[in-house]
Amino acid sequence: MTADEALTGSEKDGLYKAIFSRRDVRSRFVDREIPDDILLRILNAAHHAPSVGFSQPWNFILIKNITTRHKVKESFVKERERSISMLDGEEERQKRYASLKLEGILESAINICVTYDPSRFGPFVLGRTSIEETGVYSVACAIQNLWLAARAEGVGVGWVSILANKDLEQILAIPPHVKPVAYLCLGYVSEFADKPDLERVGWLPRMDLSNVVCYEKWGVHQSEPWSALCDALGKMKSRREDNI
Amino acid sequence: MTADEALTGSEKDGLYKAIFSRRDVRSRFVDREIPDDILLRILNAAHHAPSVGFSQPWNFILIKNITTRHKVKESFVKERERSISMLDGEEERQKRYASLKLEGILESAINICVTYDPSRFGPFVLGRTSIEETGVYSVACAIQNLWLAARAEGVGVGWVSILANKDLEQILAIPPHVKPVAYLCLGYVSEFADKPDLERVGWLPRMDLSNVVCYEKWGVHQSEPWSALCDALGKMKSRREDNI
Repeated sequence: MTADEALTGSEKDGLYKAIFSRRDVRSRFVDREIPDDILLRILNAAHHAPSVGFSQPWNFILIKNITTRHKVKESFVKERERSISMLDGEEERQKRYASLKLEGILESAINICVTYDPSRFGPFVLGRTSIEETGVYSVACAIQNLWLAARAEGVGVGWVSILANKDLEQILAIPPHVKPVAYLCLGYVSEFADKPDLERVGWLPRMDLSNVVCYEKWGVHQSEPWSALCDALGKMKSRREDNI
Repeated sequence: MTADEALTGSEKDGLYKAIFSRRDVRSRFVDREIPDDILLRILNAAHHAPSVGFSQPWNFILIKNITTRHKVKESFVKERERSISMLDGEEERQKRYASLKLEGILESAINICVTYDPSRFGPFVLGRTSIEETGVYSVACAIQNLWLAARAEGVGVGWVSILANKDLEQILAIPPHVKPVAYLCLGYVSEFADKPDLERVGWLPRMDLSNVVCYEKWGVHQSEPWSALCDALGKMKSRREDNI
């Protein structure tokens, strides 16, 4: 490839559109199959994620079987109940939590369990010798690729995290050395919402970017060599406030 | 937004181009500053990653200071030595490892340490009550967004994982409750290589997608309801072999 390698304007727009309009979909699945060629493009995008030492430690278990899905749904129901009981004493929040639709296990076209296999090309994995967790981080990067490619194809993805991993391991016959990382529901949707559900219903606000950026050290939010960037971040913030 | 929400052809091309041509850059940084507006676009893309319970648990510590970078480089040198010694008795692999350039801490335009703050909007984080690790997975998703946006802007990213987190915590004044997730080097590059470095030098091969896809349960690589997809995956594999 050549030296100046930025993408073209419309190519960049495509990436940013996928990033900004990606949603965690729980309630808008429609009854329509995902064609094999599209599913393969989505999986291939995941498979081209970065991985520590090029270890590619992921697997994708594709699930259509309805009995399997009912078992996973049971795990969700049980874990959700447990989670709601953790809000005992915070009645308002508890009621709001209970009103949220948090998964589309049965309504989506397919489910995918993404797993991490630390033994892949191991035991010595280049670059994983100091920080063991970089292996599972690679799998999370693959999930984000999958999610963006699905969005580009018009396919919604919902990540169901209210599940017991021990249930998933048993239901999907996952061996002890392999770790479930995500349980995803994929399908076409009636629409992608303008904002994340939890932002829309007022569960939590989107933070300003300026609040998550530090300079040179943790917790430093102003710094001379970075003053132009600080100013630009401040302007982004006021633009956002204008929009509300 | 309307019902049929796939991106257009050229928008999709942009996303896939970013995904397939993204590289872990260690040795091709050029001496050129990243303009603030481009850096902000890259950071804003990261900030729009999915996060469990909309908790947005990430921080981005931007680093230019050369003294700081030298300290981080020292940690790298020490951890790399330790890693090489783990290959004692495998002389060939050890020599090959030692010949690899694995970081661009000093040569890149800036470094970014991405951290995970589990206390953000906590202690109760919706969706994090069953699988605690979903918090740190959100941060890895943000890193992948950052990486793809950087690629789209023509900016290379290298993830330095051969570091001791305790060194990073000390050098960057990261408090005990916050966890460093990634140490990234960003800068313009002379080129993005056609293949990942570790694939190009023959350290490890790219796996066939068919080998990381299972059907209905772990380890099942053939399944009747999935036979058309199995066939399509097999054809992808033979197309790849034709290309070698």
